[in-house]
Amino acid sequence: METDFVNWLLARIPADPRLEVPPGDDAAVLRPPAGRRTVVTVDMLMEGTDFILGPDCTPRAVGHKALAVNLSDLAAMAARPEAAVVAVSLPRRGGDAIGRGLLEGIEALASEYGVTLAGGDTNAWDGRLVISITAIGSVAPGAAWRRDGARPGDLLVATGAFGGSLLGRHLAVMPRCREALAIAARHRVHAALDVSDGLTLDVSRMMDASGTAAVLDAARIPIHPDAVRMSRRPDDGRTPLDHALADGEDFELVMAMPAEAAHAAVAGSRDMPHATPLSIIGEVTAGQGLFLRQPDGSQAPLAARGYLHDFDS
Amino acid sequence: METDFVNWLLARIPADPRLEVPPGDDAAVLRPPAGRRTVVTVDMLMEGTDFILGPDCTPRAVGHKALAVNLSDLAAMAARPEAAVVAVSLPRRGGDAIGRGLLEGIEALASEYGVTLAGGDTNAWDGRLVISITAIGSVAPGAAWRRDGARPGDLLVATGAFGGSLLGRHLAVMPRCREALAIAARHRVHAALDVSDGLTLDVSRMMDASGTAAVLDAARIPIHPDAVRMSRRPDDGRTPLDHALADGEDFELVMAMPAEAAHAAVAGSRDMPHATPLSIIGEVTAGQGLFLRQPDGSQAPLAARGYLHDFDS
Repeated sequence: METDFVNWLLARIPADPRLEVPPGDDAAVLRPPAGRRTVVTVDMLMEGTDFILGPDCTPRAVGHKALAVNLSDLAAMAARPEAAVVAVSLPRRGGDAIGRGLLEGIEALASEYGVTLAGGDTNAWDGRLVISITAIGSVAPGAAWRRDGARPGDLLVATGAFGGSLLGRHLAVMPRCREALAIAARHRVHAALDVSDGLTLDVSRMMDASGTAAVLDAARIPIHPDAVRMSRRPDDGRTPLDHALADGEDFELVMAMPAEAAHAAVAGSRDMPHATPLSIIGEVTAGQGLFLRQPDGSQAPLAARGYLHDFDS
Repeated sequence: METDFVNWLLARIPADPRLEVPPGDDAAVLRPPAGRRTVVTVDMLMEGTDFILGPDCTPRAVGHKALAVNLSDLAAMAARPEAAVVAVSLPRRGGDAIGRGLLEGIEALASEYGVTLAGGDTNAWDGRLVISITAIGSVAPGAAWRRDGARPGDLLVATGAFGGSLLGRHLAVMPRCREALAIAARHRVHAALDVSDGLTLDVSRMMDASGTAAVLDAARIPIHPDAVRMSRRPDDGRTPLDHALADGEDFELVMAMPAEAAHAAVAGSRDMPHATPLSIIGEVTAGQGLFLRQPDGSQAPLAARGYLHDFDS
């Protein structure tokens, strides 16, 4: 079974001029773009923890997400996606069909984002599905967006909208790679990250890394319709803003930019790839901590809530 | 717990001039060596399938092995190890101590082989331990050893000795990276791979990929003392040669080399790093299949035995 699966997999990987030695050997050999840095990130997803296979969460959706969260990390560095390798542990029962579904999801997204699949490791075991993808990107020397460069006076600019991703959006992640490259080409960005564990938690990480504080404007956080839907559930008891601030798995970018660059980016956001909206959600200040400012100007400390089950570095 | 663990991990990773952005951001940024290709490989190990934690198999040993098998793949491409990223799913119970042990094993080997740890993803779950490592190496353009280049008339040269690795050697793998680089610098190699699934099975893969056949000389296969020990077990019923041909997890290199280069390499093998012995174990012929030749010259087809549970590409 597995030999067939691997052969099937290899046959589906399109030829790519970036591959000097394609998958199928002990390792793949890539031609890195001349004069650029290599950006590398890894994320592992486990069934029962990160997803539960079922009608709403097919193997194809899991494959998509497993690659998408990695590409989101590359976007957060303003890196161009280049390649990915995939390791999976398939449950023995039904593993072949699961593997094919995973690969279909991975392939479709890889093809759309110009990622060459440079190999993998396919295993079967008695445990639940585990998938680990390592994504490789490239960036010009010194041009990667770090999370520790925010400065007092910067404005915080976010792509898209936040909250309620658990209603399904967390699976159908469209990483903001093109948006990041478009912004990096036109505007100065001091710091950036992608929001995986929750807007408040991830922004507080950027502030901690930068040695700065931030004030988020309650009225300016873009709230996703899913956050509104979730807050309307009878037993929810939270506001749409609560969801936007804490839910996580939004995979939107938050960037700390000089005020002028931030305004220019937002003004030009109708030219963004996919017409992705950009919003100014707050500002960076001297000090420590995170604060929420109401339209009347009053502000209060914001607890760094979000998902703490999963850390990546 | 996990935040502490990740901080502990990050603090232990030594500064490396190859890292433009160190781990701790959304992704790491590496300075790739100018003018070289990027070699990438991934291997995932799962508890209960690839190892069983216990007194003879500590987390540290698992960490060592998880990196070692990847470095062995780089060796099989004649690539210089550069970097690695690690993804783990730790069991919730005792996961912190297991994670530390894994990292100690990874770090010690990484330090010895000049590998920079460029990041990772640490998770906890209700399942068993899973570790996936992606290793990145470099090689000059066109210089990677492929498995499909063997030609009739080549001799098959092996490092080290085979069989019985299950007695413990399969954990304490010392990948043949330095040996591969030393051979690549001095001798012509048409094809190579590392023996993970069994000498017979892996050589047959090289022959299939190359469109050639091979004859292995029964009397010239270097048999590891562990293969002899295993064959002496009361219920074993196999010869040391059987073990050497089929056991797998030897992580030795097999190279197809022009006869003159093969003889020169073997003659100069006392200069090998670690004094690793080199042996001529057979020859490549026209045709298809794998044959075992006895000292009297008689030969018979050799079934491609070995571990089929795990495929990597």
